[in-house]
Amino acid sequence: MSLSEFALIERFFTGLGAERGDVTLGCGDDAALVEVGGTTLALAVDTMIEDVHFPADAPPASIGHKLLAVNLSDLAAMGAEPAWALLALTLPAVDENWLTAMRGGLDALARSHGLALIGGDTTRGERLTASLFVGGPVDNPLRRDGARPGDVLWVSGWPGEAAAGLACWQAGERGDDVAPLIERLHRPTPRIALGRALRGLATAAVDVSDGLLADAAHLCERSGVAATVRAADVPLSPALAARGGAALDYALSGGDDYELLFTAPADAGEALRRRAADAGVAVTPVGVITAGAAAVTLVGADGAPLAAGRTGYRHFDGTGE
Amino acid sequence: MSLSEFALIERFFTGLGAERGDVTLGCGDDAALVEVGGTTLALAVDTMIEDVHFPADAPPASIGHKLLAVNLSDLAAMGAEPAWALLALTLPAVDENWLTAMRGGLDALARSHGLALIGGDTTRGERLTASLFVGGPVDNPLRRDGARPGDVLWVSGWPGEAAAGLACWQAGERGDDVAPLIERLHRPTPRIALGRALRGLATAAVDVSDGLLADAAHLCERSGVAATVRAADVPLSPALAARGGAALDYALSGGDDYELLFTAPADAGEALRRRAADAGVAVTPVGVITAGAAAVTLVGADGAPLAAGRTGYRHFDGTGE
Repeated sequence: MSLSEFALIERFFTGLGAERGDVTLGCGDDAALVEVGGTTLALAVDTMIEDVHFPADAPPASIGHKLLAVNLSDLAAMGAEPAWALLALTLPAVDENWLTAMRGGLDALARSHGLALIGGDTTRGERLTASLFVGGPVDNPLRRDGARPGDVLWVSGWPGEAAAGLACWQAGERGDDVAPLIERLHRPTPRIALGRALRGLATAAVDVSDGLLADAAHLCERSGVAATVRAADVPLSPALAARGGAALDYALSGGDDYELLFTAPADAGEALRRRAADAGVAVTPVGVITAGAAAVTLVGADGAPLAAGRTGYRHFDGTGE
Repeated sequence: MSLSEFALIERFFTGLGAERGDVTLGCGDDAALVEVGGTTLALAVDTMIEDVHFPADAPPASIGHKLLAVNLSDLAAMGAEPAWALLALTLPAVDENWLTAMRGGLDALARSHGLALIGGDTTRGERLTASLFVGGPVDNPLRRDGARPGDVLWVSGWPGEAAAGLACWQAGERGDDVAPLIERLHRPTPRIALGRALRGLATAAVDVSDGLLADAAHLCERSGVAATVRAADVPLSPALAARGGAALDYALSGGDDYELLFTAPADAGEALRRRAADAGVAVTPVGVITAGAAAVTLVGADGAPLAAGRTGYRHFDGTGE
């Protein structure tokens, strides 16, 4: 299924059902926003399928962790506070040891974010498929559609580590040098604290699930702006930089790190760095927002456009999401 | 996967994550209840898998209808008002005609209940799998755990038609005599208006998804009571009665009609019938709640226990849910 086919499906389900006055933001962002009394709730869902979104031989605790982390990342991109989750789980068989470990990974991350699993549905199917619904309150939410020309484009943490970690995992590499990469693949950290700290300062935000360039394009499309990304400014972690020439491609096009990509006015840099430091993660300016049709241009140190090796992350079965 | 294995899985995921003061009701009912400001929200999820929960050759519009109907039925059993849905859809391929028809069925039912689809996630997988999350506000919710000895057990509408309809569908029967049964299989009516009308009168409620006897057992287990069901009082629709000797078994053990099974004090009968008539559906007293360990006893016209042909609905692949 190609990315354009996904766009087709998204169009099919946009605008479905009644129009409601309590829906502030529907399909097309990291989460939807609804108003309940005086409270805004962010609501999101993500599906993970064995051998599409995670290797079948991944440690089950990390599968539980990652299932929730991917969903929490959607809340992080809205600046929302995690509160509740419901799990729709399809399993080929019941393996108590596997379930115990998977539950443990999910439970630990849920507790660390004060989130309660409040319901679910279990069905039998050939392949492990898990859809998690998450919700929680948010004041002054971040959205994808607020970026303005002149804003600076920032990224949190170290993009590309998870994609490099996947390549190592599939190649059977398990050494100390690649351990940080594999850890990031299996146990991404949702940037909840950062997302909450960015409210009132960032003009737009998206989580990096498809890749830095691809998600920058999503943000630009929703905001009606263009972006220029400076390849030389994209931060490379020591573990990723040690992978040599492919490092930048992973950082530009690898998803699954669940960092935040966000925009802010040019004079907000000092405040952003301070708030991010309080949230426990570095942030790096990697580009600028410009006027024009939604597009992302990658430029080299001399300012001339570069061709990106890939334009977005494809899941590791090689056929897209 | 047997029913006991499902119970095992439910135990695995009960109590997962943090304890939150805003969660009034967690796993184990038709929906969870959370408090947001002064409003109670009911939140639920259900998964439907091709060839497990619906025949792959069912009309796509009816698949869209049924996916939402099954989820709305969970809200109906809580007395909640449908508001928002998020769809996690796994598809083997993109077929525009199929998607258009499926969307149409979903859209029509959503609009008729004032519900908006506000988000979703689409992934590729071998077999069509759809998990729908629904939510909406509820004052004075119905729950499974309020039945008391002396209460009367009621059922809405005509249980068993969908299960008989499935047998007809699988046997290739398409005559006018079985059309009402097949319609009920493909296009169940969620009892939203009835559920809302029962608030403040019914002491407990559950939707009939596994079968009348099985879901009566679920209600008894949550309420800590027993129930006696009088086989002769279980309503049989004309179309179902025409199926002969198997009709009662369908009505007792067939799921998928998504009727409501509920309890109310013995003196509430007249008020119940009036409210149900206003909601456009008949209700029938089929048994009584008694003190004792959670169990459901089926009795004949003479009051002597009968053996039920089956104790709960198994989905039509014959291996359970």
